Amino acid sequence: MCARNRGHSVLQGSAVAIPGFRPAQFHNNHYGIMSQTIHTQTPAAVAWCGDTGGYLRLIDQTLLPCELAFADCRSTEQLWVAIVRLKVRGAPAIGIAAAYGVLLEFSGEIPANGDSFRDRAMAACDYLATSRPTAVNLFWALDRMRKTIGLAADVKPFDGEQALEMLLAEAHAIYGQDRAMCRAIGMHGSALLADCKGVLTHCNTGGLATSEYGTALSAIFTAQDQGNTLHVYADETRPLLQGARLTTWELMQRQIPVTLICDSMAAQVMREKRVQAVIVGADRIAANGDAANKIGTYSVAVLARHHGIPFYVAAPSSTFDLSLPDGSKIPIEQRAEHEITEGFGRRTAPVGVNVYNPAFDVTPAALITAIVTERGLIQPVDRANVADHLGVV
Amino acid sequence: MCARNRGHSVLQGSAVAIPGFRPAQFHNNHYGIMSQTIHTQTPAAVAWCGDTGGYLRLIDQTLLPCELAFADCRSTEQLWVAIVRLKVRGAPAIGIAAAYGVLLEFSGEIPANGDSFRDRAMAACDYLATSRPTAVNLFWALDRMRKTIGLAADVKPFDGEQALEMLLAEAHAIYGQDRAMCRAIGMHGSALLADCKGVLTHCNTGGLATSEYGTALSAIFTAQDQGNTLHVYADETRPLLQGARLTTWELMQRQIPVTLICDSMAAQVMREKRVQAVIVGADRIAANGDAANKIGTYSVAVLARHHGIPFYVAAPSSTFDLSLPDGSKIPIEQRAEHEITEGFGRRTAPVGVNVYNPAFDVTPAALITAIVTERGLIQPVDRANVADHLGVV
Repeated sequence: MCARNRGHSVLQGSAVAIPGFRPAQFHNNHYGIMSQTIHTQTPAAVAWCGDTGGYLRLIDQTLLPCELAFADCRSTEQLWVAIVRLKVRGAPAIGIAAAYGVLLEFSGEIPANGDSFRDRAMAACDYLATSRPTAVNLFWALDRMRKTIGLAADVKPFDGEQALEMLLAEAHAIYGQDRAMCRAIGMHGSALLADCKGVLTHCNTGGLATSEYGTALSAIFTAQDQGNTLHVYADETRPLLQGARLTTWELMQRQIPVTLICDSMAAQVMREKRVQAVIVGADRIAANGDAANKIGTYSVAVLARHHGIPFYVAAPSSTFDLSLPDGSKIPIEQRAEHEITEGFGRRTAPVGVNVYNPAFDVTPAALITAIVTERGLIQPVDRANVADHLGVV
Repeated sequence: MCARNRGHSVLQGSAVAIPGFRPAQFHNNHYGIMSQTIHTQTPAAVAWCGDTGGYLRLIDQTLLPCELAFADCRSTEQLWVAIVRLKVRGAPAIGIAAAYGVLLEFSGEIPANGDSFRDRAMAACDYLATSRPTAVNLFWALDRMRKTIGLAADVKPFDGEQALEMLLAEAHAIYGQDRAMCRAIGMHGSALLADCKGVLTHCNTGGLATSEYGTALSAIFTAQDQGNTLHVYADETRPLLQGARLTTWELMQRQIPVTLICDSMAAQVMREKRVQAVIVGADRIAANGDAANKIGTYSVAVLARHHGIPFYVAAPSSTFDLSLPDGSKIPIEQRAEHEITEGFGRRTAPVGVNVYNPAFDVTPAALITAIVTERGLIQPVDRANVADHLGVV
């Protein structure tokens, strides 16, 4: 590994580089913060260290895959900057980080009375919510924290220590629920991959984006836990290369065989029968099962159909947006041109060239073999089965 | 444009940077070397300047798209290095450059007798043939030059000046024949695109790789000449980004509207009905019409079929290899891992990651709507029509 030390300003959080880091030699138990044992060699993307006066340790994902370094956040300002600078990314991981982040407002200082506790904690929520204005999980997690703040502030007589403990317990609960959800997706998803030797995936859907096992990668991690180690073909996922930078790294950490390919090579890999399934995540799923995910996912779905390979989408049930009848109503974010024209630190296209850079595409339900949630499978994928799965009359 | 001067060693050939270069302001007539007018604003990738004592001017393609600079080669050694370093690329362009390169052995010095002329010229051919050992066009062009060397050396009485003129005439003929062939492909190809507004292409198939108009891009350039300016969607073409670096540049030079996309976005572009056809080149075509081309071409062909969009292959008839019954016999070159993991001067994947990097893929004839050669169309694409087209009994 090309590990090296890097300076980090106080505002960015202090980085803890691991000299000579090697995938197989690293164990996360020296900073374990959950009461449950984590069965993984991959350090957590987000980890609270210590009691109510502790701090938040993030993997600085901007330095991966060349360097595994932690950004330790000891103030809400440090966390805010870490979120803005994408040191932590992935909607569930951002929500978890923000939930713990409310504790950083106090740094272990015991609040004297309910009003000041409420004011400071609520202000911290408002502040952290401004770090990623479009991150739905961020608002959802902070709303849960606000409810807990209200409850704790109203306890008579007010107990500052207990109030902080209530905050930490709620953040731990958010973390733990995400973790359990990912594990359940993994159990259901791994069953789909039981007869596979090779699997193709797109973008990054593992522990770096969530609490621990992720969504699509959770199926692959769980298969490994069950003794079925798959060979994963990882699309590099232009323009931002989450597959090349993050997915390969997570799989190598777990010693799961992974082969990196360019997105344009997926068809050839399928034609050569190197993979027997495709599994990807989703950002939003409409009521009929149309699924929005990282740009390039739709392409992979078409290619899988052409080659007779099943195409699975793994996502928590909270990913469904039943207000949208179908995928045509999912807004597609257009991102900056420079991600394509100078995404590698060097200009790779003429100045002034037109660029089309949609961040997502929508895979129609008809191309999805099954959707895997923490509740089980939706198969075949259609409006009735989605409603039934989610318990909507 | 991010034009800037760069130092070039004598061995590399002297570079002629054009300060303040702008696509629309540049005209190539100040170094025109062909007797025919070239109807293009794009400077030629390969151009002989002067008479038998002249020099070879190459566009230094390693500097595109940020800088348009010429590498002027005044010795066979300079040309050899320029080919090795990919300053000139594309099989036809390399062949043309090598043909002119034989003249550089003499630098205008009039050979005294037939034997010394033959020895020096043949040695120059042998030397230049070592620059790209797998380039078929290179050997083909040098074989033509060897025949001319033999004829010129045997003229009695030997006339050194005439011998050099015969070499230059043969090199001009090679250039001119490639140019005429590209123009003919363009005429046939443009007819296929008559009803299109948008066209998608992959890799680079224009003037930078040939004498002037190219193959697939020739159809688009010719359509423009005929008043039908298409909107081109250019796949960036990972890993080496020929689409982002070269195709966009060529199209912008000609003021043809071009939009750069990542390879993973082609499916979305088709789904949004932004293109009504796909046209690509080919490196080798088997007797049944299966066509090998830059990796990612097969993916585009599958996507085009799914979206009901015609998929055209444009290539000279010399691209057919009738010794191969079908595409399964076309050898697929595997290229270096670093093209994917650190292709942009910065590492984008973990050290030690497995990489699969096939340089080409094979599109089966069944996915090809028509093959366009200088002779016309092969449609539908099958063994009988290929044989008929090529005049093979």
